[in-house]
Amino acid sequence: MGVVVQNIERADQSVIDRLAACGVATVHEAQGRKGLLASHMRPIYPGARLAASAVTISAPPGDNWMIHVAIEQLKAGDIMVLAPTSPCQDGYFGDLLATSALARGCKGLIIDAGVRDVADLTAMQFPVWSRAIFAQGTVKETLGSVNVPVVCAGALVHPGDVIIADDDGVCVVRREEATDVADKAEARVALEEDKRQRLAAGELGLDIYTMRDKLAAKGLKYV
Amino acid sequence: MGVVVQNIERADQSVIDRLAACGVATVHEAQGRKGLLASHMRPIYPGARLAASAVTISAPPGDNWMIHVAIEQLKAGDIMVLAPTSPCQDGYFGDLLATSALARGCKGLIIDAGVRDVADLTAMQFPVWSRAIFAQGTVKETLGSVNVPVVCAGALVHPGDVIIADDDGVCVVRREEATDVADKAEARVALEEDKRQRLAAGELGLDIYTMRDKLAAKGLKYV
Amino acid sequence: MGVVVQNIERADQSVIDRLAACGVATVHEAQGRKGLLASHMRPIYPGARLAASAVTISAPPGDNWMIHVAIEQLKAGDIMVLAPTSPCQDGYFGDLLATSALARGCKGLIIDAGVRDVADLTAMQFPVWSRAIFAQGTVKETLGSVNVPVVCAGALVHPGDVIIADDDGVCVVRREEATDVADKAEARVALEEDKRQRLAAGELGLDIYTMRDKLAAKGLKYV
Amino acid sequence: MGVVVQNIERADQSVIDRLAACGVATVHEAQGRKGLLASHMRPIYPGARLAASAVTISAPPGDNWMIHVAIEQLKAGDIMVLAPTSPCQDGYFGDLLATSALARGCKGLIIDAGVRDVADLTAMQFPVWSRAIFAQGTVKETLGSVNVPVVCAGALVHPGDVIIADDDGVCVVRREEATDVADKAEARVALEEDKRQRLAAGELGLDIYTMRDKLAAKGLKYV
Amino acid sequence: MGVVVQNIERADQSVIDRLAACGVATVHEAQGRKGLLASHMRPIYPGARLAASAVTISAPPGDNWMIHVAIEQLKAGDIMVLAPTSPCQDGYFGDLLATSALARGCKGLIIDAGVRDVADLTAMQFPVWSRAIFAQGTVKETLGSVNVPVVCAGALVHPGDVIIADDDGVCVVRREEATDVADKAEARVALEEDKRQRLAAGELGLDIYTMRDKLAAKGLKYV
Amino acid sequence: MGVVVQNIERADQSVIDRLAACGVATVHEAQGRKGLLASHMRPIYPGARLAASAVTISAPPGDNWMIHVAIEQLKAGDIMVLAPTSPCQDGYFGDLLATSALARGCKGLIIDAGVRDVADLTAMQFPVWSRAIFAQGTVKETLGSVNVPVVCAGALVHPGDVIIADDDGVCVVRREEATDVADKAEARVALEEDKRQRLAAGELGLDIYTMRDKLAAKGLKYV
Repeated sequence: MGVVVQNIERADQSVIDRLAACGVATVHEAQGRKGLLASHMRPIYPGARLAASAVTISAPPGDNWMIHVAIEQLKAGDIMVLAPTSPCQDGYFGDLLATSALARGCKGLIIDAGVRDVADLTAMQFPVWSRAIFAQGTVKETLGSVNVPVVCAGALVHPGDVIIADDDGVCVVRREEATDVADKAEARVALEEDKRQRLAAGELGLDIYTMRDKLAAKGLKYV
Repeated sequence: MGVVVQNIERADQSVIDRLAACGVATVHEAQGRKGLLASHMRPIYPGARLAASAVTISAPPGDNWMIHVAIEQLKAGDIMVLAPTSPCQDGYFGDLLATSALARGCKGLIIDAGVRDVADLTAMQFPVWSRAIFAQGTVKETLGSVNVPVVCAGALVHPGDVIIADDDGVCVVRREEATDVADKAEARVALEEDKRQRLAAGELGLDIYTMRDKLAAKGLKYV
Repeated sequence: MGVVVQNIERADQSVIDRLAACGVATVHEAQGRKGLLASHMRPIYPGARLAASAVTISAPPGDNWMIHVAIEQLKAGDIMVLAPTSPCQDGYFGDLLATSALARGCKGLIIDAGVRDVADLTAMQFPVWSRAIFAQGTVKETLGSVNVPVVCAGALVHPGDVIIADDDGVCVVRREEATDVADKAEARVALEEDKRQRLAAGELGLDIYTMRDKLAAKGLKYV
Repeated sequence: MGVVVQNIERADQSVIDRLAACGVATVHEAQGRKGLLASHMRPIYPGARLAASAVTISAPPGDNWMIHVAIEQLKAGDIMVLAPTSPCQDGYFGDLLATSALARGCKGLIIDAGVRDVADLTAMQFPVWSRAIFAQGTVKETLGSVNVPVVCAGALVHPGDVIIADDDGVCVVRREEATDVADKAEARVALEEDKRQRLAAGELGLDIYTMRDKLAAKGLKYV
Repeated sequence: MGVVVQNIERADQSVIDRLAACGVATVHEAQGRKGLLASHMRPIYPGARLAASAVTISAPPGDNWMIHVAIEQLKAGDIMVLAPTSPCQDGYFGDLLATSALARGCKGLIIDAGVRDVADLTAMQFPVWSRAIFAQGTVKETLGSVNVPVVCAGALVHPGDVIIADDDGVCVVRREEATDVADKAEARVALEEDKRQRLAAGELGLDIYTMRDKLAAKGLKYV
Repeated sequence: MGVVVQNIERADQSVIDRLAACGVATVHEAQGRKGLLASHMRPIYPGARLAASAVTISAPPGDNWMIHVAIEQLKAGDIMVLAPTSPCQDGYFGDLLATSALARGCKGLIIDAGVRDVADLTAMQFPVWSRAIFAQGTVKETLGSVNVPVVCAGALVHPGDVIIADDDGVCVVRREEATDVADKAEARVALEEDKRQRLAAGELGLDIYTMRDKLAAKGLKYV
């Protein structure tokens, strides 16, 4: 505790943009179904969809001091990822901090705790994925750390990893794997487009994916 | 496990339409307050309101194979009702399956588990009532059954039963009772309209329902 | 149980309006971070924001009889605050009761239980903050009380206290403290406006709040 | 609501005893992994293990009137199975009702709600599997039903079905299937005994169940 | 925040002892079913049963500083009642603090948060009723208050109120009402003893409480 | 997925033994309050206390195939740590697997899912810390991995890390840090022993830790 790592590696913006275009569900599939944050992480308003580089925050329960510290570390295109050191739903973040983060080019916030001023954040179109919406305030008394690895909502996030978030939730891609995952995700998108057209035309998945023999072999009975 | 029942009875479309017009809360009252699914079943977007015939799916946790099997059994006007065999919130269903289901005339999905691609499903106006929104994918390894009775979110659903769903949640009406319930529900609607006008005009429920004597008899004290 | 207090004190409307303008998060801070209801109390639709005088209801689980009794006690500008005597998520309240409450000038409902007919309530713009949306009906068999102190979602509410509610949740302000809290809340708003402009211009909270020395004294290390 | 079915069929005591000897996990496997109640159903003390015929109770939230009605319907060797009509954790049952039930030869209680006086019930060795331990009392105002089918903790229970309960939880076996399930469960027990000895001797499941080829075919890699 | 009230009134020890003898369920009934803490408050070991005077603690999330302050205020026969100012399950209390509290004659702890060192506390027979068992430590940075009114697990507790706790949970009795409640609770105990004997002898509650006519009037049908 | 790492480093047994002697709460403090698994991880019976080397398992929901694979990798003194790839409470593990694990010298199981046959496991004194007790069985269809890093109940666990578990829960210590943490934990134990004696003698923490000035400086008021 009490460490701020100032220089972190980030993925190329072009790769980040490619991942954003694919969305959470596709990216998660493309990287072998890993890196998904828990389903309790929900957006404060529908429709936001982004990818960004993680600036991570490890913070004590009910103490948002480290967010002020983290904001100084933000570069344009970053997203903050806050994991409390024990379960907490206090409102660590509101419209003043969002104003400050926006001034640094921040893309949003992922927080396994609470957020407040959500009407203002919605008006500002500052997207947040959180565990709770809760007006309960926090103190500024105890140190945490910035840009250290954290486990956020069940997923391990390193500083500089790529966060993809949309209405389906939040997924993290390791920075080193971002290009490979983007390749695979785009391949899935292409593949899915073909399948979508065949399915829309009335073809069955049973036939497209040739499942009938396998189902029969397992013993499926039609009565 | 491992059974697909191909021919199920369905209620008359006219009855289904009458139930849709009454909505979940009224239908639930009309049938004696039974058949309601648990309150954790929430729509992925507000405003959908429908009634449809249930094609039921019993599926293993984290395995959506049977949805492909079920889609072949769909007739226009059906809704799929999926109950996992043990608690699970994985995303069994997304936009590709919705495309396929729509091509069969499917009206929507009731799933006591997770769903993903909700932005796409919303754009397609394919309504889903689910326990969770979660991008976590599933496998296709283990058989389940289609069109067998299931307990979904605490309610017993037989194939061909009528599902009513709106912003209040989801209710099931036994196929054999659908006409009777529709009669009673419509009678409630008529009755409520009269009460609504009297209440809007400032009359009190205490007087409309002649509650004052009963309250006094129970011992209510005004101080 | 079984008591209706008919004459309660209310705060001045002008003070109530001032609190409404400040919103839940600011009022909660202004009164020393007390009086917040639990984060499970969520609005049935986004965007409502109000302050009103509490008419409190203590009701048995699954029994909404006392709401009829409470409606007679409403004055224009009041809000009902219902606490069940044991945990319950049944739908105590729907569009008929809302019609009746609106006819009395009621501003909304705070209920640590369920609500139904939410599509209608949304169309009527009758705001409700609740623990659940659930079509499950209730009976009218057992007495409760109206306008007695209740603990609602973890917060103590006296009749006549001021309820502030918006997208962040619900906060209660003691009637006797309402003017003082309004003063403090407005002072916070003024102060925040100045900070917002400085933060928007790129100044850091670390500097505005002169945190750097304190962080260093605690041992924060930049690496 | 408001029906008491007085004559129900029960399984033979000899079959019930055979099922008791096998325990919940084995019986659940033997009948194809169905009939298990949700994992929130926990015993109030460890070590109880039984099977008994279900006398079912459908009761309103917070109202235990029907338990008095049900006790009259009990025969020696029965167990009560109570499902509230909406979620509730009130303490429907305590030592007085247990005294009465014991006098009728009742074997215990399965309740998807709360129970109280658990120190006394433990001293009496009257086993209860419940959702909660909660001293909150109930009223006697509203009718429910006795010996109708209920969904209890997610499982469908018909009156006269066999309930198996132990430290692992609770499982229901349809009366008509009880003999067949007992046969299969005992076969499993015999089979498991052989495997237990081989495993205890250090043989691996990988070899006993000849899994190595199948794992390799799926692509498992040892590194 | 930041206040320690040093002189509080306590109920007479004789009354406290009488309440202890009656137990939580009976006391809760005797005072009209109020004052019960939520069912998530569970004892760390079975069998403890006590009544004691409340020394209340309002503490920030994850900060146990005020427990040290509270211990100085303890008199022999007191129990500490800690309510965090926002939801928290951190382990505020362990064997060192228990050693200190025991040295002051403290009877136990009620905490709507976490506790740790439970094996040691069990060996010391220092009873705790808590929301969680969690080894997560706390800091000592932020003030709270001692001996102010708190809402703990949904119940309002004033300093000096009588806490009754046993395997059924925790109940609070207002100090001013303690004698009256003790009278009523003892009357219930006497009454219940008579009923227990009649029920044990096989008489039915339906007859003892003369419920048959009322059930018939409500429309109960035996089939 | 689908990888088994066969050779992992383990900490020295002497260090593991030293950590076991200190217990979860002390070890967690000693390593700076990190590595604690979530509070929902509870022992199936009280009193177990151990430290062991982690053999990690990443398994699909409802599929326990990888446990068989993992058992072959066990060395005497190891503990299995299973994290499902999505939330699941199925009973992955019972008495047969425990028999096999015991034959390999396994010390126990940490599983962020369910376990069954708990009466047998208790009789065998095979300790398990789990999220749930649930008889629901699993399949053997889909690969997972053994001895890869996993996030289990919110904590990152590498194969070969030291797991400490007792009635307070479960904590993980990185293998590389085990000796350092053991040193610090033993130092804490020594320090605590002195404090325990002073506290037992009636000295106050306020004085032992010289808190009075700091409290006064923060503004604590005694009234």
